[in-house]
Amino acid sequence: MTYSVAVSGASGYAGGEILRLLAAHPDIEITTVTAHSNAGDPLAVHQPHLRSLAHLTLQPTTPEVLAGHDIVFLALPHGQSGQYTDALAGTPLVIDAGADHRLTSADAWAQFYGGDFHDPWVYGVPELPGGRAALAGASRIAAPGCNASTVSLSLAPGVAAGVIDPSDIVSVLAVGPSGAGKSLKTNLLAAEILGSANPYAVGGTHRHIPEIQQALAAAGASAGVTPDVRISFTPVIVPMARGILAASSAPIAAGVTDAQIRDGWQSAYGDESFVQLLPEGQFPRTADVLGANTALLGLAIDRSANRVVVVAAVDNLVKGTAGAAIQSMNIALGLPEDRGLTVNGVAP
Amino acid sequence: MTYSVAVSGASGYAGGEILRLLAAHPDIEITTVTAHSNAGDPLAVHQPHLRSLAHLTLQPTTPEVLAGHDIVFLALPHGQSGQYTDALAGTPLVIDAGADHRLTSADAWAQFYGGDFHDPWVYGVPELPGGRAALAGASRIAAPGCNASTVSLSLAPGVAAGVIDPSDIVSVLAVGPSGAGKSLKTNLLAAEILGSANPYAVGGTHRHIPEIQQALAAAGASAGVTPDVRISFTPVIVPMARGILAASSAPIAAGVTDAQIRDGWQSAYGDESFVQLLPEGQFPRTADVLGANTALLGLAIDRSANRVVVVAAVDNLVKGTAGAAIQSMNIALGLPEDRGLTVNGVAP
Amino acid sequence: MTYSVAVSGASGYAGGEILRLLAAHPDIEITTVTAHSNAGDPLAVHQPHLRSLAHLTLQPTTPEVLAGHDIVFLALPHGQSGQYTDALAGTPLVIDAGADHRLTSADAWAQFYGGDFHDPWVYGVPELPGGRAALAGASRIAAPGCNASTVSLSLAPGVAAGVIDPSDIVSVLAVGPSGAGKSLKTNLLAAEILGSANPYAVGGTHRHIPEIQQALAAAGASAGVTPDVRISFTPVIVPMARGILAASSAPIAAGVTDAQIRDGWQSAYGDESFVQLLPEGQFPRTADVLGANTALLGLAIDRSANRVVVVAAVDNLVKGTAGAAIQSMNIALGLPEDRGLTVNGVAP
Amino acid sequence: MTYSVAVSGASGYAGGEILRLLAAHPDIEITTVTAHSNAGDPLAVHQPHLRSLAHLTLQPTTPEVLAGHDIVFLALPHGQSGQYTDALAGTPLVIDAGADHRLTSADAWAQFYGGDFHDPWVYGVPELPGGRAALAGASRIAAPGCNASTVSLSLAPGVAAGVIDPSDIVSVLAVGPSGAGKSLKTNLLAAEILGSANPYAVGGTHRHIPEIQQALAAAGASAGVTPDVRISFTPVIVPMARGILAASSAPIAAGVTDAQIRDGWQSAYGDESFVQLLPEGQFPRTADVLGANTALLGLAIDRSANRVVVVAAVDNLVKGTAGAAIQSMNIALGLPEDRGLTVNGVAP
Repeated sequence: MTYSVAVSGASGYAGGEILRLLAAHPDIEITTVTAHSNAGDPLAVHQPHLRSLAHLTLQPTTPEVLAGHDIVFLALPHGQSGQYTDALAGTPLVIDAGADHRLTSADAWAQFYGGDFHDPWVYGVPELPGGRAALAGASRIAAPGCNASTVSLSLAPGVAAGVIDPSDIVSVLAVGPSGAGKSLKTNLLAAEILGSANPYAVGGTHRHIPEIQQALAAAGASAGVTPDVRISFTPVIVPMARGILAASSAPIAAGVTDAQIRDGWQSAYGDESFVQLLPEGQFPRTADVLGANTALLGLAIDRSANRVVVVAAVDNLVKGTAGAAIQSMNIALGLPEDRGLTVNGVAP
Repeated sequence: MTYSVAVSGASGYAGGEILRLLAAHPDIEITTVTAHSNAGDPLAVHQPHLRSLAHLTLQPTTPEVLAGHDIVFLALPHGQSGQYTDALAGTPLVIDAGADHRLTSADAWAQFYGGDFHDPWVYGVPELPGGRAALAGASRIAAPGCNASTVSLSLAPGVAAGVIDPSDIVSVLAVGPSGAGKSLKTNLLAAEILGSANPYAVGGTHRHIPEIQQALAAAGASAGVTPDVRISFTPVIVPMARGILAASSAPIAAGVTDAQIRDGWQSAYGDESFVQLLPEGQFPRTADVLGANTALLGLAIDRSANRVVVVAAVDNLVKGTAGAAIQSMNIALGLPEDRGLTVNGVAP
Repeated sequence: MTYSVAVSGASGYAGGEILRLLAAHPDIEITTVTAHSNAGDPLAVHQPHLRSLAHLTLQPTTPEVLAGHDIVFLALPHGQSGQYTDALAGTPLVIDAGADHRLTSADAWAQFYGGDFHDPWVYGVPELPGGRAALAGASRIAAPGCNASTVSLSLAPGVAAGVIDPSDIVSVLAVGPSGAGKSLKTNLLAAEILGSANPYAVGGTHRHIPEIQQALAAAGASAGVTPDVRISFTPVIVPMARGILAASSAPIAAGVTDAQIRDGWQSAYGDESFVQLLPEGQFPRTADVLGANTALLGLAIDRSANRVVVVAAVDNLVKGTAGAAIQSMNIALGLPEDRGLTVNGVAP
Repeated sequence: MTYSVAVSGASGYAGGEILRLLAAHPDIEITTVTAHSNAGDPLAVHQPHLRSLAHLTLQPTTPEVLAGHDIVFLALPHGQSGQYTDALAGTPLVIDAGADHRLTSADAWAQFYGGDFHDPWVYGVPELPGGRAALAGASRIAAPGCNASTVSLSLAPGVAAGVIDPSDIVSVLAVGPSGAGKSLKTNLLAAEILGSANPYAVGGTHRHIPEIQQALAAAGASAGVTPDVRISFTPVIVPMARGILAASSAPIAAGVTDAQIRDGWQSAYGDESFVQLLPEGQFPRTADVLGANTALLGLAIDRSANRVVVVAAVDNLVKGTAGAAIQSMNIALGLPEDRGLTVNGVAP
């Protein structure tokens, strides 16, 4: 069958990427695209790269416009999804690319986001422990934060296997500015970012921190332990439109061997196509996953520093957001998991 | 007086930057520029931006050509400086931009570089504890490694003040490819680096690690302790020609207050012009120091992660190499320390 | 049926892109990948983004290895294809991504390339006048030069319609460095290209000039005239891994109206999916076609300057090379022309 | 003596660059910095790279605040300078970095800018014919448009020497986004520009066109002819923070020799330090002039295309704006012309 789809926030970066991927999905008909201030414009004005959708016009983002589709994607600023929940009660599948339904802790929501807390939906990262099972048949899915899923995928196997200490994680991420959305802010201007590396949200304030803590705690719980997850998290915007290169490390657990460590990741991802552990001594580049739904991981065991280091490359708009949403959609609908998605990046 | 200068390795990036800065130095006459395979070429072929030096021709890098100047800068590949040492015995001041004379430990040299070990020269980072005093009147100076000095300057005050634990340092650096030199390697091609973040030397193998350990151990020793310095070090090449953005963190020492922590850095750098601590909540960008001899630091105290995070921005070719060399030269010669150097970056 | 394919030059940029596109082509089995100095390496060492082909090993590029496939792609340096022609006499379809079989004029070959002249093959740009018809059933295809096809597609409709004067064409192109191949040259190093715009082959020396002249002369001839084609051609490498943004202009022919001019392009490309004329007043960006087989054109009629200006955006590795090769292959084989190709770019 | 200076628009890119250069000028005291919506902020919030000026606070841009200085720089959006003219009647030297006082033709102003026409001031490009003489002792100076001065300097010698035909000029420029100012526009966001080449103002609409026509007409008039200047002008934003790489061409005048052509430029710029003609066969890159007040030109004579091609590299914020302003200031004040300015670029 063909599913009818509405995509809200269709003039933004996340919405655009959802559309790009859906346009290549044989089971999907993109019926409706909506926007807020850009409503009324041809989609092609805001997404000139989506040639196959150039006939579409942006409609206003209202409950009425979004209702009546098989699937609705919400790609709205944080805090705005909730207002559509009731109106979409009859929609078989709703996928939120925003943060509103990611966190299970109201306290964490209050501390990092503020505003009304919404009930958590199924988390859209199939490769995390229990992730795929929860997504099967799901009707409400929260796509992950791009940085959060990158770091969670990087370290969950080590937490689940008990080979790293999650109480002293350090993650530093080189990220492209598309992750911040199509926002008119001075610090996102090209002249500010070209030729420069610009840190932001330094010192424990980034909103993806509780999401990582939640995912890694769940990974430990699924392994029978309740870990104390603490993370020093420093994102740095670098001059590439897309991509996340996350260097994450944690202390080596006492007494574990190198083989045990490496096996933790190998056993977790050995059968996955979209999360791949590179051979020993190899580390990924963000170009290797550009446009692809692939997370590539490289693993180093640094006994001198007593840390396991995982370097992960993800396209923030694909595996970090839109690809994760569509992969999750495929699972929820019982379709082949890789439909509409590619594993090969666009490089150079 | 005017000092006559010879610069070897003048067709490379470090040599070119030494020349750019010296060309603005009123007490210096650039008499001789030398190169290896490019000898015989006009300097302007390899350094077309150095318009004021376009009349110079590259001579061969030989002891004979380098001898007879007041000052000689060696900007050669690692391991090649030693062959010139004897021939330059009569040269009043020799400054090596390579690694040959940086390390005090023959074991560390053997492990990370290999080949003949050379005696250590005075280390060219004036703002480290004891650094300026050692440079006064020095005749042999080892300019620092760019990544090493960036991380050492980031954390030395905390080690010296005893407010961080140096045994679990984590440093992740976004670096521009000029730090790797003008080397014909596939991984340094523009198409490989544009639009991508590319890690290298992951897992404890980077050659700057022992240099950092040495500097931080010295900072502790100068404060009366002998710290155990361990560092997880991950450099990531990002698409900017120059610059280092180093995010370094270490556990907060037991019982110290936020004020004590911040005061460690403030007291160390409050009187420095080339190493500046930004106001609380502000963090530097590499563009802010482009072309300048300035290291800018931002400090965060993350009690949730129990880590002090220092973000440092440095131009790898200036404060990281050539500027450090010339600042050290000025001190050695008794000239004003900032002569020929700028504190303002070229941004945007 | 499934066609077996061998790709030579598989460790390079053109070869890698041919593989990326073929990997998504349902009728193709990539049987063999070959290289010269990299033979013996896993393909994944040189093309780490091609995850679905990570099991392949590079074999040596020899006639024996290439023979015996349904289709062979030659992605070799210019001048090297000829040596395989005889050995591949029995191969049903050979597509050369190099220049050896593009030019019909031995004089032009001698002037711009030198060395042995080879017979011209069918030119792989279906949207040029007569292009598609020639490709139907072809067994030997010369994929175009990326800059050449971009400029030819930009101006051919105007020449064929007689609305521009081809004797005073000016084309200036902003191009990414991947167009120069994975070559170890100083001017292709990242530090040389990041943050800079670097012209090359200025003043009439670029090898794509005769290819453009040939294509535009043919466009005129197909329209019953034999135009005198002269072109001032200036390429500028800019800091993006891929992409061509060509600004081409030519004098407006005497007496033609704006409507006649615009209709020249509209009628040529109105039914094409891979070459699209944007609405009046809109101009393309290279990001809009990244990874796509699409050439986007914007047209301006500047009566003050008496010139028609066409701005074209092309991904040099796709529509400029590998996509053109596969689109041509599809036509030659009688497959749907867009199989394995996308029209939507990867932006931002 | 030391001149007191006020800089308006000090939180923007042009204002920031004026400040960076003035901070290195020994005869200048930066007394006052002003802004519009950012008034009240520390300058360091908006110009964090200007460490030596970090003590300054932005005052409101009002006639009262600007009055009473020896020199005032206006770095305001186009159309806003006029309101300060009367209030600054007593200021010995006013330099406008905006367009308000550049054009001599009210018609051109009306067509390309609109709004009130203001009287032309002395044009701040000393190297144009008659430029330096007009600036000596000037009290009101209009700094040039960055693209305009780049193209005018590229072609004026050829017009003045009568070796090119100015009625069919074609200029295509690769430009960095800082030339568009610190404006919150979607098309200036980093994610839109990274990895892409983006044309704008195609087809004869760019505001710098009449400024070029005016300068080249003057160059011809100074040589005794009144040329008909027509120009096809296409700017393309490319992913570099600063820089202009202008490829300009014009038909070769009938009967002139290559030597006559080259001599036109050589005689015009042979004695200039800030505008340099490169040796035959060499062409400049924008990195070669980054941060410098230098315009580098490369000249090709393409007899096949019958065009002289001039490729020029300029830092849009220095020689294109702020450096031109300060060079002009030096001339007006009778100071050494190069004071506070550098000829060497910051590369790589």
